[in-house]
Amino acid sequence: MYKVVLIRHGESVWNKENLFTGWTDVDLSEKGVSEAHNGGKLLKEGGYTFDIAFTSVLKRAIRTLWIVLEDMDLMWIPVVRSWRLNERMYGDLQGLNKAQTAEKFGEEQVHVWRRSYNVPPPPLTRDDERYPGKDARYASLPTDEIPLTECLKDTVERFLPYWVDSIVPVIKEGKKVIIAAHGNSLRALVKYLDNISDDEITGLNIPTGVPLVYELDEDMHPIRHYYLGDQDAVNAAINAVANQAKKK
Amino acid sequence: MYKVVLIRHGESVWNKENLFTGWTDVDLSEKGVSEAHNGGKLLKEGGYTFDIAFTSVLKRAIRTLWIVLEDMDLMWIPVVRSWRLNERMYGDLQGLNKAQTAEKFGEEQVHVWRRSYNVPPPPLTRDDERYPGKDARYASLPTDEIPLTECLKDTVERFLPYWVDSIVPVIKEGKKVIIAAHGNSLRALVKYLDNISDDEITGLNIPTGVPLVYELDEDMHPIRHYYLGDQDAVNAAINAVANQAKKK
Repeated sequence: MYKVVLIRHGESVWNKENLFTGWTDVDLSEKGVSEAHNGGKLLKEGGYTFDIAFTSVLKRAIRTLWIVLEDMDLMWIPVVRSWRLNERMYGDLQGLNKAQTAEKFGEEQVHVWRRSYNVPPPPLTRDDERYPGKDARYASLPTDEIPLTECLKDTVERFLPYWVDSIVPVIKEGKKVIIAAHGNSLRALVKYLDNISDDEITGLNIPTGVPLVYELDEDMHPIRHYYLGDQDAVNAAINAVANQAKKK
Repeated sequence: MYKVVLIRHGESVWNKENLFTGWTDVDLSEKGVSEAHNGGKLLKEGGYTFDIAFTSVLKRAIRTLWIVLEDMDLMWIPVVRSWRLNERMYGDLQGLNKAQTAEKFGEEQVHVWRRSYNVPPPPLTRDDERYPGKDARYASLPTDEIPLTECLKDTVERFLPYWVDSIVPVIKEGKKVIIAAHGNSLRALVKYLDNISDDEITGLNIPTGVPLVYELDEDMHPIRHYYLGDQDAVNAAINAVANQAKKK
């Protein structure tokens, strides 16, 4: 039986300001830092340890991981970063205020972009200053792999090969793995593991900073999963994320 | 022409308390944190950027690197940790007070352990709680590679293969490299690069937190090297390290 631990980064400064973030590289808010410490505390109290960590190339996930590793006295373990663990790329909505966007395009349209499985927001153009191809961290990617926008389906499709080719072999070696990532890259994984339908997955809310443990059999099928910590607090955190999605 | 940047970690809490540290995994002091920020600032002001970072498995070097990467907005670059970049392993002296050790063994003997090239301090035994083989981070090493003590010559011998096999190929690919390490692992590199004699190398003092730039030709021979920042401050930092070595 294998165990893998997922942790969604804490609140970011743009989350707090109600802006669409996507691949924008914003840092954790003060609350987000404290959420990450709480995650580290729960893992330490639960007697967890890790041999290797995976994260995205976005600092809100990396900082969450750094805080967890620091609190667990595991700063020395290997950390592997990949853009494939990034948040869903939010296209031309990145940097826009969520309420203003709802006013401009209508609430229904924004709801579709945020909650449908396969309708992406309007794409960025390659001359936009937000185009990831202008950022050194994506410079080595082939142009056709750099997204201009993504629906959740696209996120699933670019995340899964990384899970299969880079993370699963490490788990099967017996290494204890933690993955610090984002709401939608973790949704992508959870959808795959638990075989959740396209319709249901967008309604699944993963709370920030709460370690989510998956126990897997030798074929990487989930036996069970659970959040660490007080379950009332976990449910409150899930509701907070759900309400955040409704926030105007 | 290639450039590689070396940075020695800032002051640690044990350095401040005048204890022999070696492989003991102590954190930076407040002053050490501020030295690391200063290093990051100098690199940023100098227009430096990096594609990849190498560091040890000891948190004083890792935290120095984290601070530098954070200040340079480079948290996303790959970071490779290796025990081969660790500080010199200080054997049975680890954790002892430097002044008390001088009283016990005599100043001359301690001077030999600290400053000779090829006389190691007394070794640890494998049942000592300080034996690295009891630490998860060294668990995958063959027993005969886990040092019980090291003279600087031993540090050179376990560091150089890593330089040749793991760092040089990356530099030759054109990647911009930063190495965050320790007084003696950096001495090992500088000795090799500048072909410094066994006698001279132990008198060479590398200041903490000051970026040291080596410009290398295509055969990895140094063209020149220099510290970033105000040269009077650099000289003061070198003297501070030299005086630290004399401190009782």
